[in-house]
This record gives sequence, structure tokens and C-alpha cells, in this order.
Amino acid sequence: MAEKLWDGRFDIPTDKSVERFTSSIATDSRMFREDIEGSIAHSRMLVAAGILSSEEADAIEKGLREIEKDIAEGRFVHDDSLEDIHMHIESALTEKIGDTARKLHTARSRNDQVALDVRLWLRRETEEIIAGLHALRRAFVDLAEAHMGVPMPGYTHLQRAQPVLFSHHMMAYYEMFTRDAERFKDALKRINVLPLGAAALAGTPHPIDREMTRRLLNFPMVSANSMDTVADRDFVAEFLSCASICMMHFSRISEELILWSSSEFAFIQLSDAFTTGSSIMPQKKNPDIPELVRGKTGRVYGHLMNILTLMKSLPMAYNRDMQEDKFPLFDGVDTLKSVVDIYIRMLPNMKVLSERMRTSCEKGFLNATDMADYLVEKGLPFRKCHSVVGKAVAYALSLGKELQDLSFEELKGFSDLVEDDLFEALSVESMINRRTSAGGTARENVQKAVDTAREVLAKEQV
Amino acid sequence: MAEKLWDGRFDIPTDKSVERFTSSIATDSRMFREDIEGSIAHSRMLVAAGILSSEEADAIEKGLREIEKDIAEGRFVHDDSLEDIHMHIESALTEKIGDTARKLHTARSRNDQVALDVRLWLRRETEEIIAGLHALRRAFVDLAEAHMGVPMPGYTHLQRAQPVLFSHHMMAYYEMFTRDAERFKDALKRINVLPLGAAALAGTPHPIDREMTRRLLNFPMVSANSMDTVADRDFVAEFLSCASICMMHFSRISEELILWSSSEFAFIQLSDAFTTGSSIMPQKKNPDIPELVRGKTGRVYGHLMNILTLMKSLPMAYNRDMQEDKFPLFDGVDTLKSVVDIYIRMLPNMKVLSERMRTSCEKGFLNATDMADYLVEKGLPFRKCHSVVGKAVAYALSLGKELQDLSFEELKGFSDLVEDDLFEALSVESMINRRTSAGGTARENVQKAVDTAREVLAKEQV
Amino acid sequence: MAEKLWDGRFDIPTDKSVERFTSSIATDSRMFREDIEGSIAHSRMLVAAGILSSEEADAIEKGLREIEKDIAEGRFVHDDSLEDIHMHIESALTEKIGDTARKLHTARSRNDQVALDVRLWLRRETEEIIAGLHALRRAFVDLAEAHMGVPMPGYTHLQRAQPVLFSHHMMAYYEMFTRDAERFKDALKRINVLPLGAAALAGTPHPIDREMTRRLLNFPMVSANSMDTVADRDFVAEFLSCASICMMHFSRISEELILWSSSEFAFIQLSDAFTTGSSIMPQKKNPDIPELVRGKTGRVYGHLMNILTLMKSLPMAYNRDMQEDKFPLFDGVDTLKSVVDIYIRMLPNMKVLSERMRTSCEKGFLNATDMADYLVEKGLPFRKCHSVVGKAVAYALSLGKELQDLSFEELKGFSDLVEDDLFEALSVESMINRRTSAGGTARENVQKAVDTAREVLAKEQV
Amino acid sequence: MAEKLWDGRFDIPTDKSVERFTSSIATDSRMFREDIEGSIAHSRMLVAAGILSSEEADAIEKGLREIEKDIAEGRFVHDDSLEDIHMHIESALTEKIGDTARKLHTARSRNDQVALDVRLWLRRETEEIIAGLHALRRAFVDLAEAHMGVPMPGYTHLQRAQPVLFSHHMMAYYEMFTRDAERFKDALKRINVLPLGAAALAGTPHPIDREMTRRLLNFPMVSANSMDTVADRDFVAEFLSCASICMMHFSRISEELILWSSSEFAFIQLSDAFTTGSSIMPQKKNPDIPELVRGKTGRVYGHLMNILTLMKSLPMAYNRDMQEDKFPLFDGVDTLKSVVDIYIRMLPNMKVLSERMRTSCEKGFLNATDMADYLVEKGLPFRKCHSVVGKAVAYALSLGKELQDLSFEELKGFSDLVEDDLFEALSVESMINRRTSAGGTARENVQKAVDTAREVLAKEQV
Repeated sequence: MAEKLWDGRFDIPTDKSVERFTSSIATDSRMFREDIEGSIAHSRMLVAAGILSSEEADAIEKGLREIEKDIAEGRFVHDDSLEDIHMHIESALTEKIGDTARKLHTARSRNDQVALDVRLWLRRETEEIIAGLHALRRAFVDLAEAHMGVPMPGYTHLQRAQPVLFSHHMMAYYEMFTRDAERFKDALKRINVLPLGAAALAGTPHPIDREMTRRLLNFPMVSANSMDTVADRDFVAEFLSCASICMMHFSRISEELILWSSSEFAFIQLSDAFTTGSSIMPQKKNPDIPELVRGKTGRVYGHLMNILTLMKSLPMAYNRDMQEDKFPLFDGVDTLKSVVDIYIRMLPNMKVLSERMRTSCEKGFLNATDMADYLVEKGLPFRKCHSVVGKAVAYALSLGKELQDLSFEELKGFSDLVEDDLFEALSVESMINRRTSAGGTARENVQKAVDTAREVLAKEQV
Repeated sequence: MAEKLWDGRFDIPTDKSVERFTSSIATDSRMFREDIEGSIAHSRMLVAAGILSSEEADAIEKGLREIEKDIAEGRFVHDDSLEDIHMHIESALTEKIGDTARKLHTARSRNDQVALDVRLWLRRETEEIIAGLHALRRAFVDLAEAHMGVPMPGYTHLQRAQPVLFSHHMMAYYEMFTRDAERFKDALKRINVLPLGAAALAGTPHPIDREMTRRLLNFPMVSANSMDTVADRDFVAEFLSCASICMMHFSRISEELILWSSSEFAFIQLSDAFTTGSSIMPQKKNPDIPELVRGKTGRVYGHLMNILTLMKSLPMAYNRDMQEDKFPLFDGVDTLKSVVDIYIRMLPNMKVLSERMRTSCEKGFLNATDMADYLVEKGLPFRKCHSVVGKAVAYALSLGKELQDLSFEELKGFSDLVEDDLFEALSVESMINRRTSAGGTARENVQKAVDTAREVLAKEQV
Repeated sequence: MAEKLWDGRFDIPTDKSVERFTSSIATDSRMFREDIEGSIAHSRMLVAAGILSSEEADAIEKGLREIEKDIAEGRFVHDDSLEDIHMHIESALTEKIGDTARKLHTARSRNDQVALDVRLWLRRETEEIIAGLHALRRAFVDLAEAHMGVPMPGYTHLQRAQPVLFSHHMMAYYEMFTRDAERFKDALKRINVLPLGAAALAGTPHPIDREMTRRLLNFPMVSANSMDTVADRDFVAEFLSCASICMMHFSRISEELILWSSSEFAFIQLSDAFTTGSSIMPQKKNPDIPELVRGKTGRVYGHLMNILTLMKSLPMAYNRDMQEDKFPLFDGVDTLKSVVDIYIRMLPNMKVLSERMRTSCEKGFLNATDMADYLVEKGLPFRKCHSVVGKAVAYALSLGKELQDLSFEELKGFSDLVEDDLFEALSVESMINRRTSAGGTARENVQKAVDTAREVLAKEQV
Repeated sequence: MAEKLWDGRFDIPTDKSVERFTSSIATDSRMFREDIEGSIAHSRMLVAAGILSSEEADAIEKGLREIEKDIAEGRFVHDDSLEDIHMHIESALTEKIGDTARKLHTARSRNDQVALDVRLWLRRETEEIIAGLHALRRAFVDLAEAHMGVPMPGYTHLQRAQPVLFSHHMMAYYEMFTRDAERFKDALKRINVLPLGAAALAGTPHPIDREMTRRLLNFPMVSANSMDTVADRDFVAEFLSCASICMMHFSRISEELILWSSSEFAFIQLSDAFTTGSSIMPQKKNPDIPELVRGKTGRVYGHLMNILTLMKSLPMAYNRDMQEDKFPLFDGVDTLKSVVDIYIRMLPNMKVLSERMRTSCEKGFLNATDMADYLVEKGLPFRKCHSVVGKAVAYALSLGKELQDLSFEELKGFSDLVEDDLFEALSVESMINRRTSAGGTARENVQKAVDTAREVLAKEQV
């Protein structure tokens, strides 16, 4: 058993099962770079504070860099009795450079150290997610532009409602994922705060310079209250809230891709490279990716519920329960990143069956609203138009026809206001292109939305 | 067995049950002001667009104002067959002013109308919550200032760790609720977007001016994509995420107040006005308010899970499922507001038992870290100090003493570095006041934190 | 303010805002029948125990029955200062019969009293839900029988897979809701336990006879440990777990009804009486009921998460947090019952478009597996068959044909084992009726499943 | 890349990123024993059905047993292109025994195969959990018996309420975990159902004998409907519901152990072997185990929310989303088992500080109820007694005394009914031992409860 760093007052050695149960090394070892990065900054600051000599700090940095390399290259053995990555690294450093290593922990505690590592790690991951969302949003814009002008049925209640441009539909997802990116950026403000220096919970009497550590580690802010600092996991909950909403968006586009891949809709074809077959049914080409993504939604929701439950009712300041924050956070990050990544790969390989989309617009009375609008423009109050058109729809239905298949006389029979130009008004292209209200589906609007999105994306630094 | 609703009577007119099931009037009637506010703005815009005459818009506004008064004064009968507040108001308006009322729905749909009402309503509520949090944060600062200098044990793992100022502890909550306020402000950016004009899902061919509606209703932004606009409930999920994190903070302070009210801690006394008794145990003075608040945490978490589940996998654009967003949102808002309110009332009436807090600092080896720090300053590597002090603690424990009760010789026995000034270093006041690192619990720091908070609060507009 | 029943040691009157915040009367008043039922049984037992005289118990019963009538007929005013239904009733009884009323609370506490009321209430509701599920299961069996023999595509991954009987599909839901009923019955075992007699937490020194109370209130069991009794809300969590799984089933059938109501599937038509229209699109006939049911799924999940969060980490025994159990429980029960009810009404009014279902079986290579099975029977290892058929499918696809549309020669080209009888094997009827493995979709199987279900239902007492 | 088993109709090879994303081998490999067990039973049945020869089945079994050994001994390489454990094993078998291996998949699909594996696996795990709970319940009974007679304060609202036996408190947990065991047993009924034979979703035309497979695999029941069979994950949700409620109980006992380990309560001392220290505070002995257990509660709740969300709105029958069931299920099982295990180890090593418990009963007016009960027995209506005692408590408080410290005259001053025997009634032992109502805390009751529990445990087969 490795030497414990805190067993001065203990008589009985820790039970092996306890070490296994309490150890977090299997989970938190992935933060080794952040732990080392933080320790180096801490040691540099300790030099300025007169607590370490330059030589000591140099030895620490050299030792830590070697350890970093060892870990990165897989030459590092885990030992449950060393509990976590912080202890593993400190123990390895002691082996390498002796007693100087033991000075590194001056003026800090695992409580603020772990908070630092998680924040450094999550900052980087959040930035990567924002970059991933940037690429994803571009993929939607690319799709919108590539298929500009293709009409498809717009649905409400999964009933055909009014024709829209496929590009307009894609740009709806651009909007959702843009909001997600904004949310992550807002969350980043609260992630990106230096906790180191709070020590166990009360601050430290050593003459440390948190401002210097902040600069070295490139944080915009230093945390304000030492107790709050070590007790705070808001940023984990907030991150997982953002991730949950983002996954909700993925579940929606996935549901649509699954619907559209069905024989019944047949609006798209996912590339063979992005589908899988059946072990028993040779004809199957299954939309596994969107299905799995939809399924992973619950996983991220579950992680959010986990962290919220975990933090409920914890008194100040640090409690060991908080070690359990890493499981939902790490898997939440991994899940979301893998989903963003696979979507970026899959979307450009999706075949849009535009002819089918177009012909689907012609069945299902998608022009009923436009006939009503037509009558409004001729002067009928809207609610009356609604009723007139309702009757026309019922009549056409009884003949197995669509509105545009009725004769002029038949249509006139429902309202004297009907004139020749009604048929033009009921055409798919016309319906779409007349919807020029801001945010509407008219082609000119959608093209403008695409152009604006391109500008926005170009301006973003990723 | 009691009478059943479902004993197979299929010949009863079923549409009544459907009306009851689908009706939302019992829930959404509370948005009547927003519905009317939105309709008036819409009608003014329709005048500018040449769709309504000024006279018609005047008649509409007059009628709507009368209806608003009727509802506010309880003179409005609900009818499930009219489904929701929007239909109720439109129907009442038609009764009042006839056919003109029917023109009001030109160029809008219930889909964008309900989105507008919810956003208007939630904007106001979120602003009120931010204002409530402002008052709450001030209550914590007041507490901190009123009891400046009172030491109490700081805990980690609910074990006494190091002494802190009670004021420092209170300021930790100031920090948490400040973050909450910031999160709500960030959410507000995404709530505060005009949806009206998206119509059913595709925009409208009528020559509407969404920019004008935006100005009239005081929104900073117009939504960009009509499909996204009617399909989006992100802002509900984001609001409930913020509310969940905020309730998590309330659960933590509540847990602490419950602990502190126990005979075992006895750190505070809640006012008689804010406790209740037992129907069977005459001596009880129960911390019901913090208990109920802690209990309500799950309620808000549940609402968050509700909205996330609800939105999962919904295809574009509007689906009727989304009507169910109001239950969690409304109750989430009500719950959070009532919790903020009761805390603002309760905190100033809390009696701080400072003598008990102070004496609790003297038992439990809260100065062990400081003895270690003392040795660090004398030149011993930190990890060695830890072990030396661990042994001293074990020795003192075996005598039923605290460190400060040991003799100079006894202490010297553990390390030659021990000198006279150790006893001063181990005193409660000294321990607290030496923790001058940024964010630490030294009195000068905490006073500065209070002063800064006062400035921040003064600058906020609420 | 009404007289408080516990204010002996209190100096300051309860704050009005506190009364409002802590009062549960708005929620728990619906348990008034159970409260009265429990009090009458308790008073009868107190007579046997020599604590009350028969006359006193008579007076109590008479008074309580009057109060019950008053409440049932709406002649009962709520007063927040009386907190809850228990205090309201006791206070009203005191007004009616004077000091004797005050004896009723001997040997009980609100802690066991409220546990009793909730258990009595939930026992009745659970029984009604089981009865509702009985009717629902019958509705699925009725549907299965009424449309026996109608083929439809069976889906996996929402891709057409193999033809199945519509009746088989309906019987899958029969199975799910049967499991739900069984789960509720299992939960009922743990709901149906007498808590009264646990008193505040420790039992009572009064010579009560819990066995007698148990008999009077028709409980099969008496709770075993007084502390557990007042601290236990497992049965609420278990009920809401069962309700959540049941709602999950409703979300699945609802999703299918929504899909099937779309133009793309067009497998069913919901009755006009069970759909609603659009305020803007005259042609819409929206599947609002299934959409709302799907949406309500999150509501019940949220309630489950609420109660689990609420109970997390509560120390023994009763804590006021537990008052919050009623919100999720009551709304969970109401939601589930309304959903069961509306489904029982809606299902029989659903029109099955069997011709469309049948023709859908002929497109999409639903017979590919059967061609593989055919080859297996001719002696080819299954995995090879799979590959052969895969190639045949690809070939047919390239011609825009189905397997059954290929010529004998073409098919033979993929395997020498192909003979004349292949075409018969590939017919929809044949494919269905050959699946005679236990639980398979062959008509004879499905008819047997229907018959068995009828027997099971007939044997159930509801 | 390994040969795909379903790529007959595919032109483009699967993208590597897709293989990684869709592969479940890292997760589901732990079911290799169940997969092999199921395959052997299936092959034996295929012999009886005339589909395989005995020799083929022998070869299959021999091959599978070798593979089982390879996997168990770590000689098995994962390959994402083989997706899951089922394909890995089939592929390895084909390598070993050639074409015969390909016949094994006759009359089954991965859809029913995976359902079988999960059910076999979960059946075993659930049985182990029930056995673990048996040992845990015994540990509570042991504790109860070992400390029989030790009084401690019973709490409501975390306020001292009435004295109880520590053993009574422990037996409350015995009750909770007994209910958990019962719930798991009920869930097991629905886990323990044979799915194999449902094939992809519709059953199979091959003449299989599911009854024989059932016998071979020792299932009490065969699933009734093939579509339901492959679409059903109720048993996962039900298991995780049971696990969540069980974890809720662990969170409660953990909260209590944490409280009791604090300096303030000091009711117990966890063994050094089951606590850990602080890296910075040498005096700390932290109750890490209960803290971590409390923290893990959210983890299991999150998994429950995951599976419920995952299954929401999935249409019939199998969907790929369902592959994601394993993550929450496996981790849920592992977490719960590790928690049960560590508690079984920790409880017997807990030191009960009985003297402190006893003296805590004497402060805080825990005898107030008994004074009221005393007066009831002397004939005062209960509600009046409550008020009298409330005044006595207030009086004693004002003097800094307890009720038992007041003089006879002082007490008499509050009610003429007070006599000499009051002091005896107010003693801790008397208060406890008078509570002889069924389930009450009187020592004779608690001893009986212990005895009954011992009998129950002895009868259980584990």
C-alpha cells in the first residue's frame, strides 16, 4: 500500500474495499494535464510569494512534465490507495524529486485543487463543443444553400400544414444550435473563474497572490468567497443544463431524419456509410445514427438530474458527495461531443429526395390557408374565410380531390369573391414565395437568412 | 369499488370529455393581460399594414380593455369548448364588437400568439425573480454586516474544519444567489424575443411589419425563423434550469438552517413567527419553512425534467404536446417566487446565537491546520507538518484535550520548531484574521466583500 | 385567526406569509373523506381501549358525518391559519361538539394521521386505476378482434420489416397495460398497510388496539415500526414509478396513432369527436388527444423525480418536507386517470384504414426475411441466405421493383434453390400465417391470444 | 474490417466513425456468458426442431465454450466493426467451426437475442442484490440486538421529539430494506420471462419450441406477444425504479451517519478503516463512505430518468435507441451492488457512543409529550394537555431548566392533576418502555421485532 498523505491520526489501515469504493482514479485520471498545469502555475506563484525557491519550482516543473509524459504514454500505474489523480501525481513527484514535492501543496487543499482541475478541463471542453456547434451550424447552412428552392410540406401536429422550403426547415435547426452555442458561452463565463487559493474552505494565511495564478492560468476572474469556491458545482449543473437542451434539439432533428427515412415519408436517404443493416432482414437500411442520438438524449438528461440531486441539501462547504460530479460531467461531455461529431459527418452525406418532397406538397390541402388568405385579401373577415375554406375542403375530400383540382365554378360556389387568380395563389411556389414576412419561408427570406448566417459564422472565432 | 368513469359507456356524447381533456383554460387564463397586450399591439400594426382601419383597431382596443377589466374583476366564465384563453377573449370580443373582432386574427395563428403570451408573461416574471433575488442578496449582506466578527466552525464533510466568520458563511450564499441572478439575466436574453408574425409555421403573405410590433411590445429582437419560432420552448427549459439551480441553493441554506436550529448545533433560533409547533409534542418549535423549501426543490427539478421530456423528439413545427409546457412553467415560477419571498421575510428575523458559535470553535481541533501552517512557516515541508500535527491531535485526543490545552513541552515534543508564539497562532481570532488571501475569511476581507456587495447592489436597477 | 392547536410555548403569532406558505389545505382538502373515515375508526377503537365512552364516540361520528356533508356540499371555508384538512376538521368538530372533540386526537399524531389518509386515498385511486386499465385492455382486445386478419407492416427502426396483423400490434399494447396492472397490484400490497398508531414517531403509551383499527379500515397489515411508519413515503415513489412506466406505454401508442394519422401513413382516422382543428388552417384535423397524452408523459416522470428528490437524505423520522408529497401524487393520479379515461373513449372510435395497411405491406421488401427463411428451409445456412437476399433486394431496387415482381428466372439467378413455391411464400398472407411460433403473428396465434385475454379479463374482479 | 453480417445490399462501407459511434461492444461484452448460455440452449432446441443435427449442436457448444474461456481469460480482441458481443461471438464461432456457426442464428434475431441476454444477466444480478439486501438487513438486526436498551433522542423536523431505542431506529431501516427486497422480488417476476423466439418482431416460421428453450434456460414463463417482446424494456425501468427507492433509503441512513459522526451529535464513530482524512486538515476523520453513498443516489435516479426518457414515444417494435438501455442498467446495478456491499462491511464496525445518546435524551424536553399523556390519563382532554405542557415548557426554558428539573410545586402550578408519580413518568426509561403499542419503541416490542426479523431472515433462501 502506498503511503497515505493524511494518516497521522489513524490507528487502523483503510479497508481495501473502502479504498476501492472511495477511489476516483479510474475517473479523474483524465484530468492529469489540468492537474499538472495547475500545479506548475501554483508553484510559480509560490516562488513569487517567497514560499518556494526558483530552483525548487524548476525541479517541480521538470518532475511534473516527466510525469505528464509518462501518463500520456501509458506508463503510469493506478493504485486505489492513492485515491485520485492529484495524489497519484504528488506521490510520483515525491518519488522523483523528494521532499521538495511535499512543499507544492503549501497554501492549497485538494478542495480547491480539484475545483481548479475541473474548471480547467471543462473550459477546454466547452470551447471545443462551441467549435463543434460552429461546424454543425455551418453544415445546416450548407444543406440549406445546396437545396435552395426545394419545397416540402411543413407540418404541425405531424399533419401537413403549409408548404415550406426544405432550406427553411434546415435553418430552423441552425437557429436552435446557435442558441445552444450562446448558452454554452454564457455558461463559460461562470466556468471560467479561478478557484485556487480558497484552500480547504477558509483561505490561507500564506502570502499567496491569486491574481498572479489567475494570469498564469488565463482566467478572467478570481472567485470571491473561499467557502462558496470549494462548495460550488453550479457550473457543472449549468453545463449539463445546456447540454440537455442541446441534446433535446438533436432528438428533434433525429426524430425527423428517422421519419424522413421511412418508406412512408421517403424524403431523404442516409448514406450507406451512415446506416446499418439487420441481422435477419436483408432489405433493411436502418437510420441507426439518429436513433442512437435520440436514445442518448435520456443519458444527458439523466446526468443533469444526477448532479442536481447530488447537490441538493449539501451543507457548506466541501462534502465528499461532490466527488461524484465527475461521472455525469465526463460522460455528458463525451456523449455530447460524439453526437456533434457524428452529425457533422452525417449531414453532408444525406441525400435529399426533392421530387418526393415536392409532390408531397400537392396532397393534403396545404393550400387551404392560402385560399383563406386569398379571401381575406378580397375583404372577407379572417374567421369567416376559415369557415368557407373548411367547407371547400370537406367538399373536395368527398370527391377524393384537392382544392386545386376543383373547377372554377365549384370554387366560386363557396364564395363569390373567388376569381381566376385563385389557382395561381394555390400553387406551391406561390404559397411559399408570398410568405415574405420577416422570418417567413419565402425564398428571398431564406436566402437572406443563409447569407446572414454565413456572415455570423465567418465572424466567430473558433 | 367506487364509481368508475370508464365502465364502457361509449354512447355518451364523447366530445365533452375531449373538450375537458384538451382544454387549457384553467391553466392559461392567467395570461389574459399578455394576450390582450399582444392583441392590441397586433391590431395597431395591422392598421399600419392597411389591414385594419384605425376605427376598427380602436373598437378592438376598447373591447379588449373591457374584457381585461371583466376578467380582472372576476366577471368571466370559462367554457371548455372554447379551449384556451385566446379563444375565450376572441369570442368575447366578437360578442362585443361583432365581425371586426374576426379580423384581429389576420396574419397570426394561435401558434405564434401563444408563444408571444408566454414570452411576455415569463419576461415579467423573470424580472420579478431577479428583483426578488436582489432583495434576498441584500438580506444576506445585512446579516453578514450585522454579525461581523462572530466566529463559527467552518465544516467540510460536516466535520469541524477551520473557524470562519459567520459573515463569511453568509456571503457565500450572497455569491450563489448572485450567480443565480446572472443566469436569469442571461436566460432573459433568449426569452425576450418577439415570436408574433411567424403565423402557423411558415410566416404570412400579409404585409405585416414585425419590427413595429417589436417596438410596441418592447422586445429587443425579432425571431429569425418562423418554424423555429413556433416550435421553440428552449426558453422554458432554460428558465427551469436556472430555477432548479437556484432551488438547489435554497436547499443548501435550508439544510443548514435546519441543522443550526437543532439542539445539537443550536447556532440560530428562527423567530416564533416563522416556525410552527407540533400537534402532539408541546415543546417543539419546528423549522418548517426551511423544511418546506428543501422539499420544494424536488418540485422544481421535476418540472425541469417534465419540460425536457416533453420536448424530446418532437418533430417540427408546433405539436399539441407543447400546450403542456404551462403546467411546469407556471408552477415553477410560483414555487420559486414564494420561496424567495419567504426567505426575504424570514432571514432578518433569525436570531444568531453567537456565543454558542464561538465556543464551538474551541472543540474539535479546528486549529490543527494552523499548527501545520505554523510549522510550514518555520520551514517544514507541508506534507511533513501534516503528519506531525496528526500525531499531536491523536495524543491530545487520548487525553480528552484540545491542542491549545497541551503544554508547551508536550507540543514541543512533536517538533523542535514549536515556539511560544504557537499559542497565539492557535487562537480562533488569529486563525480567522490571518486568512487574508483573496476570498479568505479574515475580517478585513469579509468587510471588503460586504462593501463591494453593497456597491454592486446599489448599482443594480430593480 | 383561528386558535392554533400547538401555540402553548409561542410568544409571537405566526406571520401571515408563513401561514400561507406552510398551509396545505388547498391541496389536501381532497382527502377529507379519508380523514373522517380514519377518525371514526380511531374513535371506535378508543372506546374499546376505554379512552372514550360510547357516547363520546357517537357524538364524534355524528359531528364528523355532518362535516363530511358540509365539505361535500361546498359549505366549508378554508383558513390558512388552520394549516391542513386535519386541523380544519378537528376545529370544526370542536365547534360542533365541544371538548369531546379534543379527545379524538388522543394516541395519534398528525404524522400517523396524514400517513393514514394518504394510504386510504391512494388505495382507492390505485384500485380505480387498475379498473381503468382493465377497461383499456378490453378496448385493445376489442380492436384486435374487430379487425382480425388485417395485415399491416411491422416496423423496426421505423423501417418496414415484416408484415404483421394489426390485431397482433394491438395485443402488444394489451400486454404492456397488463404488466402495468400487475405492477399497480404489487404496489398496492405496500400501500395497503395501516400506519395509524405510530403516533408522532415512537408509538403511544395509551392502550390502543391497532389490530382493531386495521379491521375497521380493512387493511390486510399493520405497519411494523413506528419510526419507519411516519417517515415512509416509499409507496408514493413506487406508485409514481408504476405510473411513469404506464405513461411511457401511453406515449408509445400515442406516437403510433400520431404517425398513423399522418398523410404519409394514413393507417387510421381518429373520429372527428376526438380531434380538433386549426385556428388558421381549415383543412387540419389534428390528433390532439394522443399529442397531449404524449406530452403528459413528462409530467408524470417529473412527479416521480420530484418525490425521489424530496425524500433523498431525509433523516428519521417525519420531516415537514414530506408535506410536499401530495402535489406530485395527486397530480400524478389525476393525470394518469384522465389519460386512461380518454383512451378508453377514443380507441373504439378510431377508424382502421385496412386497405391502406394491406397495400403498404407490398412495398418495402417486407418479404425479404421470408425469402431468406425459404432458402434456409431449402438447406442454405442462415447467414448465407441473408447475403443472397440482400443482393436480390439490391437488384430489385435498381429496377424499382419489389421481390415478388421479379421473374422466376431473375430470382433463380440469385440461388439455385429457388423454386416455384417461392411466390406463395412471399405473399403477405402466407408470411403472416406461417409465423406460428408461440407469440408469433400468425392469425391462429393472435386469435388464441385474444381468447386467452378474454378469459383473463373475465376472471378479474374490478 | 471484419465481414459484416448484413451488408448484402450496401454499396459503400460503413464509415469508421459510424462503427465507433454505433458499436456497443465496450458495454455489452460483459454479457458474454449469457449470450453463450442462450446460444447453447437455442442450438439444443434447434436440434429438437430438426433444424440442426446433434453433431452440429455439439460443435456449436464446444466452440462456444472455448470462446467463453477465451473471453473469461482475456484472450478476446474487440473490433468496433463487429458492433456488439453477439456478433463478436458469432464471428469467432464461424472462425472456429465454419458454416455450421451460421446456422445458429436460424429462427432468431438480434432483437430477441439481446433481450434474452439482458434478462438472463439482470435475473442473476437481481438475485444477487436480493441476497445482498438479506445480509444488510441482518446487519441492522445485529446492530439492534447488540445495542438493545440504549436510548437515543428520536427526531422529527431534526428537533428532539421523544426518546426511542437506538435498536428501534435500526429496525426502521430493516423495514425499509425489507420492502426493497420485496420490490426486487416483484420486479423479478417480470424480468424472468423468456423472450427468445420472438425473432425480429413477428415470430418465425421455423418450427421452434419455445417451451423447451424456456425449460433449458429455467424461465417460469414465455413472453406472449412477439412485437411486445422485442420492444419491451419495462423491466429495465422497473429495476431502476426499485434501485432508486433503495438508494433513497441509503441516502437517508447515510445522512444520519454523517450527522451522528459530527462533533455536534457525536452519537457514533465510524471505524478508522472506513473513514479517510484530509490532505490539509490533520484532525479530520471524514465519513466519506456515507457521503459517497449519498452522492451516488443521484446517479441511480439519473439512470432511471435516462431509461424513461429513452423509451418515451418509441413506436413498435425494436428501435436502435434501445441499445442505450445498457449504460444506465449496468452502471445502476454496479452502483447499487457496491453500495450494499460497503454498507454490509461498514455497519458492524461502527462504534455506538451510547452514553452520549442517553444524555442527549435529557435535554430538549423530550418528555413533554409524556407529561401531556400523563395529564390525559388523569382525565384532561388531549388538546388542553398540550396547551398546559406548552406553558410548562416555556416556563422551564425561561429558567434554563428541563421539565424534570422543576419542583413538584412548580409543576403542580400548571395543573392540579399533577401528582408525585409524574417524575417517574418523565424518566427516559419509562417513556420508552410505556410505548408498548404495536410497532412502538418499548423494549419488549423492539426485542420482539428483532426476534421476528431473525425468523424471517432464517426462512429466506439466498
